[in-house]
Amino acid sequence: MEPADIQYIGIIHNEIKTLSDAPKNYSESEKCGTLTIYPQFAEGISKMKAGMTIVVLFWLHKANRDALKVYPRGDKSRGLHGVFVTRSPARPNPIAISELEITKIEENTIYVKGVDILDGTPILDIKKKI
Amino acid sequence: MEPADIQYIGIIHNEIKTLSDAPKNYSESEKCGTLTIYPQFAEGISKMKAGMTIVVLFWLHKANRDALKVYPRGDKSRGLHGVFVTRSPARPNPIAISELEITKIEENTIYVKGVDILDGTPILDIKKKI
Repeated sequence: MEPADIQYIGIIHNEIKTLSDAPKNYSESEKCGTLTIYPQFAEGISKMKAGMTIVVLFWLHKANRDALKVYPRGDKSRGLHGVFVTRSPARPNPIAISELEITKIEENTIYVKGVDILDGTPILDIKKKI
Repeated sequence: MEPADIQYIGIIHNEIKTLSDAPKNYSESEKCGTLTIYPQFAEGISKMKAGMTIVVLFWLHKANRDALKVYPRGDKSRGLHGVFVTRSPARPNPIAISELEITKIEENTIYVKGVDILDGTPILDIKKKI
């Protein structure tokens, strides 16, 4: 089977500049940021509107990809767990899923709330929330 | 920024052999299947158990990647929407998200219920449901 050839569709900008600043996940964040969609993909946000909640997939380009076991949320008392039963950013393919609320759209820039992702992280995909 | 270099961590097997057999999404499926995790990643399912619901990311290797606008669920009366406000499999990076219930685990094979994905589709990642 051919390998997956990913194209980044955009990039997130926000105030989270270091991993220690990042909330553990989107359900614990009130932080705001912007999703800039690259011009060649901008048609894909047609009919997107303020007030919608979107599911955004990011490629965590700074994550450790070699770990297969981790302490969930860094808590050693819980013992080591396989990465696939956690939400750890460390995993073979470090794809993060965030649910973000749209506050405003200006051309190809989506303003969002609930951000838990490092500034400058590339975006892989955006979906409607089911 | 470097491109995302994806490694497939496993493959799904089930009875869905053609796209016309596939349910529209996981919330409308009772179909069963198996997730085979490749041996080099099998340690990553340590502590995974029957009864858990997992979030599984697939690479839809047969999807159309050129469409930026689609009719949601094929319904022309709703008009064209940007792919990023839909759950269409057609999108620049065709990554699908399914929530599947684990019924049994045998070594590196996970038996699941709720499958909406074509037989033979590669798996990118598995996460705990939040």
